[in-house]
Amino acid sequence: MSDPSSSIAVFGPGLMGGSLLMALRCHRPDARLLAWARRDEVLDEIRSQNLADACSTDPAEIAKAADLIVLCVPVDKMSALARQVAGVVSEKTTVTDVGSVKEPVVTELEQIFARTGNFVGSHPMCGSEEAGLSAARSDLYENALCVVTPTKMSQPAMVRAAGDLWRSVGARVLEMGPHEHDAAAAAVSHVPHIAAAALVGLVAQSQPVYQKLCAGGFRDTTRVASGSPELWTSILGLNRREISGALGNLADILQSMKAALEKNDTAAVQAFLESAAKHRAEILKVE
Amino acid sequence: MSDPSSSIAVFGPGLMGGSLLMALRCHRPDARLLAWARRDEVLDEIRSQNLADACSTDPAEIAKAADLIVLCVPVDKMSALARQVAGVVSEKTTVTDVGSVKEPVVTELEQIFARTGNFVGSHPMCGSEEAGLSAARSDLYENALCVVTPTKMSQPAMVRAAGDLWRSVGARVLEMGPHEHDAAAAAVSHVPHIAAAALVGLVAQSQPVYQKLCAGGFRDTTRVASGSPELWTSILGLNRREISGALGNLADILQSMKAALEKNDTAAVQAFLESAAKHRAEILKVE
Repeated sequence: MSDPSSSIAVFGPGLMGGSLLMALRCHRPDARLLAWARRDEVLDEIRSQNLADACSTDPAEIAKAADLIVLCVPVDKMSALARQVAGVVSEKTTVTDVGSVKEPVVTELEQIFARTGNFVGSHPMCGSEEAGLSAARSDLYENALCVVTPTKMSQPAMVRAAGDLWRSVGARVLEMGPHEHDAAAAAVSHVPHIAAAALVGLVAQSQPVYQKLCAGGFRDTTRVASGSPELWTSILGLNRREISGALGNLADILQSMKAALEKNDTAAVQAFLESAAKHRAEILKVE
Repeated sequence: MSDPSSSIAVFGPGLMGGSLLMALRCHRPDARLLAWARRDEVLDEIRSQNLADACSTDPAEIAKAADLIVLCVPVDKMSALARQVAGVVSEKTTVTDVGSVKEPVVTELEQIFARTGNFVGSHPMCGSEEAGLSAARSDLYENALCVVTPTKMSQPAMVRAAGDLWRSVGARVLEMGPHEHDAAAAAVSHVPHIAAAALVGLVAQSQPVYQKLCAGGFRDTTRVASGSPELWTSILGLNRREISGALGNLADILQSMKAALEKNDTAAVQAFLESAAKHRAEILKVE
């Protein structure tokens, strides 16, 4: 074993985990990289790309050798994997994850890691509609925002270690409570995902000829709807309370636009569109 | 004057009109290009880029010299301009437009051009959230779909001339009635525009910290919401009946997803997301 904090283990090298290994190879040439995957074929690919110094399909073997563990499996697979890791991990090892929903994951994983008290949640906001190691890329985390979600149970050293990890691969780190993260993610990511899928549904239930008119605007507006249905079913289900509230707010906004159009209230329509264009410019300039 | 069908006049060289002049310069080197703009500064820019062989701020002067006229002004400026053209245009001249809404525009312009009976509507489905001549590019129409909307009043030669124009700059042409176009455009373009603006509104009305979490998915999903509020107010207002119906259908889809989430009906959520991913792939493969 090399010195503490230099063995970093990625559990589940798909888009997020594979990209993390690639980025660590670039930015942390000193670090010893470890990888766990459920299937040997994935580890063969990891070996062939030289993305890890040691690989195993045995979670305990990898967990024991790691100073820092990043759980990169889908949110509905997180608890089962965490239980396999928790029994063997050292209390000096920081454990984090990349799940898109934080409150239920953090609550459960804090209990699973109660003996060592070394879990802190993370959510790097940089997925894509693609999935798997074949979609991974070394610059996925560059300039991305990574939310780290400490609670009153979190050890400051672990929070720092998780933040340092994400900063070392080029991400900006924002600390936020798990509940606050989930409320924000509902508004900025989960509800837009549902809206994109609903817009596809609107065209799909229309006459087939309508589909021929779908152009660049439609392509961009609905891009996220091509994301993995399995992954997103878990995400939406876990965050359903926050999403339900935000969907209600979206429905209110759409209903007020519908009413304005039906009254031919040009001033209201224009004010709505002007506000959206202005806020979008402000929002996307915000760091 | 050169031989018939070789003088093409663009009225309003903004994003759509300017791009058309650029494309015609590439693909129709034989054509004599004419440009009308309201402001001299725009024509100075047209001259400095050598995008037209003759320019004027007098609509009659350009209209008289043209074999084919393309009205590229915003939909709420179309009728006033058409009236200035209709009095002087030859009955051999084909007149078309690029308006995003067709039934009200076609109905009105067919009346304005009743003497010559030479108007047929067009809608090239290839705008962007940018506007103006500075955003124009020579390949805007390459592989774009252009809907041409003949009615029982349309002369076949004029419909052919409009289609030939769009094909000559690389577009695919689809003929469709004006009403059918507007119903389709509501579903594939106008309602997605409103949804994008509403998703920005949802974040804008939330706590400021939420904005920091807006990432690539949010950027793409809401891109069209940065389009010109003035232009889109006119488009949405003109097509408000079709849009109101489609917004109602979208609200029903969103409501059924909200209900499925609240019941934690994982099967329904997954079926919805799978259907969206599958249909999106089919829709965007459709020519």
